[in-house]
Amino acid sequence: MSETEISTLGEFGLIDALTRDFKVKNASTLKGVGDDCAVIDYGDKKTLVTTDLLLEGIHFDLTYTPLKHLGYKAVAVNLSDIYAMNGTPKQITVSLGISKRFTVEHINELYSGIYAACERYGVDLVGGDTSASVTGLLISITCIGEAAEEEIVYRSGARDTDLICVSGDLGAAYMGLQLLERERVASAGLDKDFQPDFAGREYLLERQLKPEPRADVIAELRELGIRPTAMMDVSDGLSSELLHICKQSGVGCRVYENRIPIDYQTAVMAEELNMNLVTAAMNGGEDYELLFTVPLTDHEKVEQMKTARLIGRITKSELGAYMVTRDDAELEIRAQGWNAFGNS
Amino acid sequence: MSETEISTLGEFGLIDALTRDFKVKNASTLKGVGDDCAVIDYGDKKTLVTTDLLLEGIHFDLTYTPLKHLGYKAVAVNLSDIYAMNGTPKQITVSLGISKRFTVEHINELYSGIYAACERYGVDLVGGDTSASVTGLLISITCIGEAAEEEIVYRSGARDTDLICVSGDLGAAYMGLQLLERERVASAGLDKDFQPDFAGREYLLERQLKPEPRADVIAELRELGIRPTAMMDVSDGLSSELLHICKQSGVGCRVYENRIPIDYQTAVMAEELNMNLVTAAMNGGEDYELLFTVPLTDHEKVEQMKTARLIGRITKSELGAYMVTRDDAELEIRAQGWNAFGNS
Repeated sequence: MSETEISTLGEFGLIDALTRDFKVKNASTLKGVGDDCAVIDYGDKKTLVTTDLLLEGIHFDLTYTPLKHLGYKAVAVNLSDIYAMNGTPKQITVSLGISKRFTVEHINELYSGIYAACERYGVDLVGGDTSASVTGLLISITCIGEAAEEEIVYRSGARDTDLICVSGDLGAAYMGLQLLERERVASAGLDKDFQPDFAGREYLLERQLKPEPRADVIAELRELGIRPTAMMDVSDGLSSELLHICKQSGVGCRVYENRIPIDYQTAVMAEELNMNLVTAAMNGGEDYELLFTVPLTDHEKVEQMKTARLIGRITKSELGAYMVTRDDAELEIRAQGWNAFGNS
Repeated sequence: MSETEISTLGEFGLIDALTRDFKVKNASTLKGVGDDCAVIDYGDKKTLVTTDLLLEGIHFDLTYTPLKHLGYKAVAVNLSDIYAMNGTPKQITVSLGISKRFTVEHINELYSGIYAACERYGVDLVGGDTSASVTGLLISITCIGEAAEEEIVYRSGARDTDLICVSGDLGAAYMGLQLLERERVASAGLDKDFQPDFAGREYLLERQLKPEPRADVIAELRELGIRPTAMMDVSDGLSSELLHICKQSGVGCRVYENRIPIDYQTAVMAEELNMNLVTAAMNGGEDYELLFTVPLTDHEKVEQMKTARLIGRITKSELGAYMVTRDDAELEIRAQGWNAFGNS
């Protein structure tokens, strides 16, 4: 890989190099990169807006995160927020802060991941801001999406007797992070040809490094004619997200330990690291699965879902938020999600 | 001022503390902070989106920038981009990266400036992302605005014989920065009660520390029935912006040195620092004035404007981009704007 100092291109040159081959896909994108603003046409649909900030040393570690995957993930986590409203993502803006140790080739790698996610999910890159940074890499992405007003699902719509569902499985991204951290520590001081052995753990790495937003879950919900009453994506951990829905909907909940979906590789890794498996699944975070509630009358429809499963039910607020263990004990659910300010 | 470590609030506590008193003002804001996404209703209007990233040590120096002003400016520069499309700003998202040396009180100061700008320009804060950072403060703001399709003004619409206008005056923000830098260097090593003397220079400081987006220029253009053919805001410097309009419109230009608007304080400061005044006005940047072109037939209307003045005319592309000096020489316009990657 050749190395080009970013200063040889300058900001406008860099933006031009990064965006000139990108073709706009949505009719609603009237104007993308290259003016003061992007211009988006939504007619009668409602516009959704979400934004995420990813900082080196806080949200990612480049010693084990390929830049292409990082770009993909940065987009994916924003799309996930749009799907979590039952919307369709349409446009993103990407702002980058880039320190001197990064070359144009590095930033191209990052953008190749950004574009791969845009391509896969039919999203247009419409603007951004690119700057030098004093230290490290930072990525700030804003995503704009659309939804008809009656389709939008908030966190506040869960009602007593609703069923609680979650897509995919939980805890794998967290276990992937533990695995990467362990190998990083183990390889420190070894020669640079050291190759960590990740055989049989590919799923955990993929979940950590290249999460996919669950567009397929939204599609299946529509196919089955299910409109969730409340929904959000699982970024901080199931416990934390359940408490958000309970608080904003003014309800309580019971989830069942034996219903929490966990992949085999997650279970093996938890055992190997001597960690509590259910704690990892409840509090691990970064799963980007969808947590949603549906009316009790949708019970049969939900049972047919291939992408999600029933894990509990909504109760009256005064009954609190509890997990029912395998031996029928009730454990109060507490937010132990990942906290970027360090006090968990 | 008391000091609260941010970790005592945590991310959700901090967001809650920062946003709970903010009242939504626009009917189009269906949902602000507190869900996966903001929800914005634009009916038949077109949506505009712009984003800016401000990094400590690159875009601002906290030794002389009050946090409240920084928050105000961070919003102002985004609003300026929406006005530069002839649109009306409506919503912003604010993402912050905050290192350990900042307290909750610091961040409240920053937000008081953000809210002051929102209040003054009728804009809603609808979301964001807040995180710890390894070093320094960073602010990423995205602004959403609206405009009817036929009102939107791009950079690409300038035509041969159009008149070129600019609002306010140029170079003052740059001179304000020189003044602040000089005092910072002069005060280094002195005791902390040292008070720099800025008397008579207040305008320069205000232009650097608290720029105002030119909503009033847009209002006057509408009042006089002028629809610019091309428009952008002056953030990198007049030279750089003129070349953007020429390139994107496929035209050339002549601007007249004796028409460039310069404030008295800017001129005095340039003389004191032994700097070329016109160079500062053409290349200084951060003025956040509006540069626009109008058809020749609007000549009389433009002459009536209180907020802007005529500085030149658009020519055929092959005539190039030149400044006509006071002694009728022609100097080629080159972009020497501020470049965040350090190669000017």
